[in-house]
Amino acid sequence: MKLWQKNTSVNNQVEVFTVGQDREMDLFLAAFDVLGSLAHTRMLNSIGLLDDADLALVQRELKNIYQQIADGKFIIEEGVEDVHSQVELLLTQRVGDAGKKIHSGRSRNDQVLVDLKLFFRHQIEELVKSSKELFDLLIELAEIHKDKLLPGYTHLQIAMPSSFGLWFGAYAESLIDDLELMLGAFKVTNKNPLGSAAGYGSSFPLNRQMTTDLLGFECLNYNVVYAQMGRGKTERILAQAMSSIAATLNRMAMDACLFMNQNFGFISFPDELTTGSSIMPHKKNPDVWELIRGRSNQLQALPNTISMLTTNLPSGYHRDMQLLKENLFPAFQSLMSCLDMAKLMLKNIKIKENILDDEKYTYLFSVEVVNNLVLEGLPFREAYKKVGLDIEAGQFKTDRKVNHTHEGSIGNLNLKEVKTAMEKLQAQFNFNKIEKAIQNLVR
Amino acid sequence: MKLWQKNTSVNNQVEVFTVGQDREMDLFLAAFDVLGSLAHTRMLNSIGLLDDADLALVQRELKNIYQQIADGKFIIEEGVEDVHSQVELLLTQRVGDAGKKIHSGRSRNDQVLVDLKLFFRHQIEELVKSSKELFDLLIELAEIHKDKLLPGYTHLQIAMPSSFGLWFGAYAESLIDDLELMLGAFKVTNKNPLGSAAGYGSSFPLNRQMTTDLLGFECLNYNVVYAQMGRGKTERILAQAMSSIAATLNRMAMDACLFMNQNFGFISFPDELTTGSSIMPHKKNPDVWELIRGRSNQLQALPNTISMLTTNLPSGYHRDMQLLKENLFPAFQSLMSCLDMAKLMLKNIKIKENILDDEKYTYLFSVEVVNNLVLEGLPFREAYKKVGLDIEAGQFKTDRKVNHTHEGSIGNLNLKEVKTAMEKLQAQFNFNKIEKAIQNLVR
Amino acid sequence: MKLWQKNTSVNNQVEVFTVGQDREMDLFLAAFDVLGSLAHTRMLNSIGLLDDADLALVQRELKNIYQQIADGKFIIEEGVEDVHSQVELLLTQRVGDAGKKIHSGRSRNDQVLVDLKLFFRHQIEELVKSSKELFDLLIELAEIHKDKLLPGYTHLQIAMPSSFGLWFGAYAESLIDDLELMLGAFKVTNKNPLGSAAGYGSSFPLNRQMTTDLLGFECLNYNVVYAQMGRGKTERILAQAMSSIAATLNRMAMDACLFMNQNFGFISFPDELTTGSSIMPHKKNPDVWELIRGRSNQLQALPNTISMLTTNLPSGYHRDMQLLKENLFPAFQSLMSCLDMAKLMLKNIKIKENILDDEKYTYLFSVEVVNNLVLEGLPFREAYKKVGLDIEAGQFKTDRKVNHTHEGSIGNLNLKEVKTAMEKLQAQFNFNKIEKAIQNLVR
Amino acid sequence: MKLWQKNTSVNNQVEVFTVGQDREMDLFLAAFDVLGSLAHTRMLNSIGLLDDADLALVQRELKNIYQQIADGKFIIEEGVEDVHSQVELLLTQRVGDAGKKIHSGRSRNDQVLVDLKLFFRHQIEELVKSSKELFDLLIELAEIHKDKLLPGYTHLQIAMPSSFGLWFGAYAESLIDDLELMLGAFKVTNKNPLGSAAGYGSSFPLNRQMTTDLLGFECLNYNVVYAQMGRGKTERILAQAMSSIAATLNRMAMDACLFMNQNFGFISFPDELTTGSSIMPHKKNPDVWELIRGRSNQLQALPNTISMLTTNLPSGYHRDMQLLKENLFPAFQSLMSCLDMAKLMLKNIKIKENILDDEKYTYLFSVEVVNNLVLEGLPFREAYKKVGLDIEAGQFKTDRKVNHTHEGSIGNLNLKEVKTAMEKLQAQFNFNKIEKAIQNLVR
Repeated sequence: MKLWQKNTSVNNQVEVFTVGQDREMDLFLAAFDVLGSLAHTRMLNSIGLLDDADLALVQRELKNIYQQIADGKFIIEEGVEDVHSQVELLLTQRVGDAGKKIHSGRSRNDQVLVDLKLFFRHQIEELVKSSKELFDLLIELAEIHKDKLLPGYTHLQIAMPSSFGLWFGAYAESLIDDLELMLGAFKVTNKNPLGSAAGYGSSFPLNRQMTTDLLGFECLNYNVVYAQMGRGKTERILAQAMSSIAATLNRMAMDACLFMNQNFGFISFPDELTTGSSIMPHKKNPDVWELIRGRSNQLQALPNTISMLTTNLPSGYHRDMQLLKENLFPAFQSLMSCLDMAKLMLKNIKIKENILDDEKYTYLFSVEVVNNLVLEGLPFREAYKKVGLDIEAGQFKTDRKVNHTHEGSIGNLNLKEVKTAMEKLQAQFNFNKIEKAIQNLVR
Repeated sequence: MKLWQKNTSVNNQVEVFTVGQDREMDLFLAAFDVLGSLAHTRMLNSIGLLDDADLALVQRELKNIYQQIADGKFIIEEGVEDVHSQVELLLTQRVGDAGKKIHSGRSRNDQVLVDLKLFFRHQIEELVKSSKELFDLLIELAEIHKDKLLPGYTHLQIAMPSSFGLWFGAYAESLIDDLELMLGAFKVTNKNPLGSAAGYGSSFPLNRQMTTDLLGFECLNYNVVYAQMGRGKTERILAQAMSSIAATLNRMAMDACLFMNQNFGFISFPDELTTGSSIMPHKKNPDVWELIRGRSNQLQALPNTISMLTTNLPSGYHRDMQLLKENLFPAFQSLMSCLDMAKLMLKNIKIKENILDDEKYTYLFSVEVVNNLVLEGLPFREAYKKVGLDIEAGQFKTDRKVNHTHEGSIGNLNLKEVKTAMEKLQAQFNFNKIEKAIQNLVR
Repeated sequence: MKLWQKNTSVNNQVEVFTVGQDREMDLFLAAFDVLGSLAHTRMLNSIGLLDDADLALVQRELKNIYQQIADGKFIIEEGVEDVHSQVELLLTQRVGDAGKKIHSGRSRNDQVLVDLKLFFRHQIEELVKSSKELFDLLIELAEIHKDKLLPGYTHLQIAMPSSFGLWFGAYAESLIDDLELMLGAFKVTNKNPLGSAAGYGSSFPLNRQMTTDLLGFECLNYNVVYAQMGRGKTERILAQAMSSIAATLNRMAMDACLFMNQNFGFISFPDELTTGSSIMPHKKNPDVWELIRGRSNQLQALPNTISMLTTNLPSGYHRDMQLLKENLFPAFQSLMSCLDMAKLMLKNIKIKENILDDEKYTYLFSVEVVNNLVLEGLPFREAYKKVGLDIEAGQFKTDRKVNHTHEGSIGNLNLKEVKTAMEKLQAQFNFNKIEKAIQNLVR
Repeated sequence: MKLWQKNTSVNNQVEVFTVGQDREMDLFLAAFDVLGSLAHTRMLNSIGLLDDADLALVQRELKNIYQQIADGKFIIEEGVEDVHSQVELLLTQRVGDAGKKIHSGRSRNDQVLVDLKLFFRHQIEELVKSSKELFDLLIELAEIHKDKLLPGYTHLQIAMPSSFGLWFGAYAESLIDDLELMLGAFKVTNKNPLGSAAGYGSSFPLNRQMTTDLLGFECLNYNVVYAQMGRGKTERILAQAMSSIAATLNRMAMDACLFMNQNFGFISFPDELTTGSSIMPHKKNPDVWELIRGRSNQLQALPNTISMLTTNLPSGYHRDMQLLKENLFPAFQSLMSCLDMAKLMLKNIKIKENILDDEKYTYLFSVEVVNNLVLEGLPFREAYKKVGLDIEAGQFKTDRKVNHTHEGSIGNLNLKEVKTAMEKLQAQFNFNKIEKAIQNLVR
């Protein structure tokens, strides 16, 4: 069954090619397709295009289907092209002609657009919540390990003292900036395209503000041509925000792999979280971190794939857009699993004690000594030169003490300020408002 | 002269390779380097690391250099490695030993970081203002041409009536979402990394909140390790926001090229804005739009280049970061010129009258007829079938009238709402606060 | 069962994450894993590490498993990690201890490497053959339609006369250059990594030349460290060659979508090969071409994803490499389906007659007139000026005749030379030699 | 002066935007533009479109201009749009009307196409020769240091013994595969597009085979529409081949940075080739390697930028193509400088002695012990288990001896075979034939 089916049967090879992975991908959209129809039909009723009796029937069954989806009992039957056809099929089987009326004032284009926006909005909520959990864990670890020093590297050369408090705290703060971008993506997503029909509007006296309110959107994608232009654009912006979280995880994973390497040896993980080798019995391989690193690179490459798919196309819908699903939908799962695994690993991290006692880290304190000379009154350039000469002459000495007190330094991590910043940011998403709107629709 | 120069002279080939394009790129940073030093020295004085006399000298000369830069009289002299060395050289020449003291409590790393943040913030302001001008022009054009219809295409097939009101308005609204992302990039940018030294802080009793306030930043990059991680990340996020504006221009340019094509023939431009051909004397080529399209593709590829440069690297500064300048700095100019050229072209656009009178656009109104039947009471599926059969039988008729009234449609463009949305967004950047802070620093 | 399993059971969440899509992806490798083992065991026997009786047992059962795979009856059982473990499991079940001995002198790393090389080599053969079929079809169409003219565009502006002979012929010739690149990828692929163990060789007295010959490889990846470096690199180079074919299909698809657009109207396809619309009953949408265009963009983005995954990593195996499978393996199917669909569409293409008779194509002949004046003796610049002035004065005239005779022009397509070039190129792949080697292994 | 200039003067802003960086970029093309004209005019003479007297004049002056370019005395004058106009201007100044006749039978499109092909072919020669020098150096270093062991890592975990012979040799062999791809790019490049006019041929009785022979091309780009399609495609394929060399350098650079890190400490370089730090006086930073790593990433991102610029465009020339110059031309210089710097660094590399004597590398030999047990007759799985248990029990012992003898292993590097493979590959470029043709043209 195809919504646009006419008399000519379509070549089977064409059908397989054009349906592609849509049947699998569309399962992600099922619940959101029903939400869109719940709102659309209430609006149709309000403008006289669906009578009260039909509305009641349709609402009842849509809610049943919604529950069926929630219970994991919804499938797209063999021979049904996509999720929209499947929902309409179920509805028509159960309530007859009333089910056919819900397509009025709507095209498949804006139906897909609103499904995607609702789905993306939900995924953003999941990602933001998972990122927040990782943030909380990192803050906790920073607090716990704030006194454990490790070498700080620049150019991969031993440079200055750092601490695990700084290291964990840095990744926590990194997530704040990632979520700043995600907030931008959220605002772009949280606008209602429903009512734009095939991208050029229609002669129906639709009340688009009403569906906007019912679905908990912040406002409309006003212009109907722009509503359609949002396809591909929303995906790209969302992928960019996801790639930022991915880039944070990528760096953390590379640090972890390096710190687990025996030449560094700063951290380790229990055997259950590492893997062995078929031919090197003593190894504890950081496969989880390597796969986080790899997956985060796939995610970082995703916005480019989306840009490649959408660039140089004129305005108006093109079928190319369908393929975005198979690039973006699995990416949500991939990023969620990376966040989960990072949390699992970090909860089990073991940190080596007294790392800096090793002789090779002596020169790490050279800057400390320079700075202390400066604080005692020597001009910087002279202090710098003196320590350089001491080192060259083999006369450099240090008590290996670190006394950093300024904002954001080893002795003053500003964790409270960082937490406050995260909380302010989280509040701007205002997911509660959305959840309330959805509750009102489905209950 | 190099800040880190010791006794061994560096191989000349190495010097050429490592300096790269820095001397040209750094000129963009000159004014911002001085701003950073103006703030840093006032802070050094406040914590007792620079006495009042030295501060007065240094402030006076830094302001002179700032003016020199504003007057276009600043150069990086032969043999001077970068802008930071050049400013310090000038200062030392003019105020002697006092000039050497300004490097206390600061590393070249955080000096560059703060220069970049200040520069990027300024570029964002330029881009946002230029985008707003384009937005205003598009809104104006949408209002003027709201009654001129053109065919709306889906799958590049003639689909439904559209209008130039919708077309211009769509691109206006697109810029709003682009600036939502830019606002995210702005927030990430507008945080102060100064005081993070080489990425691990220092033993100086710095007052980082003070430089944050003096430079008009919203808040600190608290964690010093994270402050350093911002290198590359800020660039990537900013490039992503720029790529969104670029994608909007790309689609507009492709539409323009297509609409100027003689088979479409919807729009044209004066001869001065098109170019000829060496061998086809009758042509009016859309070179400007083609180059906007091409430049916007270079810009869309930029975030990927940045990700490639930065991925899989462990934390801590790496020299690779220097190369980001030569990818990102010219991109600002490129995007600004695309915005400027789009405005120039749009101001001179000529729109063909009565496009839809052509016979080939008759079926464009089929959906109108279907919908009108539905509004008269026929179920959608039946109306749809009837019109389909009429078309197949050659009996399809239309009065070519369009009566769209819902929000965002041909007859109801919602330009006022779109303008309001843009104004709300613009207000969140709050550039005034920044400009005021800068004025306080340099006067 | 895991090859490296020791006493500690691995955390289940870790297992799910690390196995990822390997079980599905590995099915593509099954036949090639058996081929590798067939060759490896014959070599082990030749150096005295596997006795004749064991060899006979193992060879017999490996051939049975190979047949089982060919018959579509091979599965990776629940709880078995990957294809290598599954094959070894089957073997041990059937021949006991002899099955355990085949792992001598081999690491899972070089086992995977050789499986991948054999699989890629096979995919290259499939792609080259399918591309050749498309080439033959295009040459045939060029011959058939060589006299049908269409407008040639530059800058999307009507420029000069072209022909369908040129149009089809251009894409045929494009495939030759694509296959030049594929030949490079083939040569990189067709070298034997077996024997490199975990990337550092071993103390076994392996005869690597022998497995090279048995598996039909051109030569060895000599250096064992380089053999391991080939992971990711082979994939990237292969993806680049695939992206070149994809780029050819992309341009063809964009041309097709444009030429099917009603404003152009140069070509059309039967109803069975186009699709309709839920709300615009008269449309014939070019979905197949749009999806070819979209898929070819995913393919063009693939080399970048691979580069992102592999860049900045030090030498030696990293688990990140496993993820290349899920990016590259489905890409083979995607490209094959695009080639198949392009052939299906082109076999059914209908070309409009007498396109150039339309008034709007008059100026298309202006260059012809300029050139004819030149051939009559007028200097080019003067002829050019004269025709320009004629056009401006509305006095331009043309007999709409095209008389192009030079190599590669409308009247002289050089199809024979192009075919010869393709044949020479095809011969360099020498797939026969490979097929013969494989036959010798499995019979 | 513009070739296509008519009466209307072009808006200045448009001119600046459309000329872009062409005047700088075109200087790279000057010599090749003259070569194209030398061949084109001889062909024009042969078909009677340029008489002997004019030919003699034009050839004489073109050769003078060629010499002028070789002497570094050629500039594009203020107000001249591009290199083609400049050459034509000089010619007309010097030989009058004869100079105007050389444009017959040629469009600016195919003139640019042939200039680019000749330029690219020359760049390929430079890159291949420089890569060969690096190869020779690596082979030499492999031979010199073949007995120096270092740890081999997998998953960045200490795995098995490796050697500097293997390490240098691996990068040498990597360059062979890179040049396999470059050979493909060379073949695509080395075909003649001249005579394709604006992409649709012409009515001139051109002899394209003659210019093909004169310019030393292997054969024609036959089809004129395809000749034009080569724009962007040749660039992309060439960039892909360059990215492969870049990827090899990238990995080498990452290894070098890691091996210079004090936790590894395997290699070092003289002070002149490293740089210091403004605040950490003891450091020897690997800036050169970091910048090679960074530049090689810019190069790896380049093919994607080109794909983004060219995808989804219909056939026929578009002005977007012009921008490829500013992405690709500087990339040649960048890659050449990376190759040069890699050679400079490697010539000065210092390798630490007896690296493996360190206690932490003991387990590196576990696989050796397993394999030796196997060679003594123990089944692999049992040997593997035994060594694993010994390690767990703290009873693992090793004599730290490595006896690898198979092809490509520590004791048998196959350098001779690798050198032979490189020589065979080099021969296929046959640059001599090209150089001879060019000599014939200009003498």
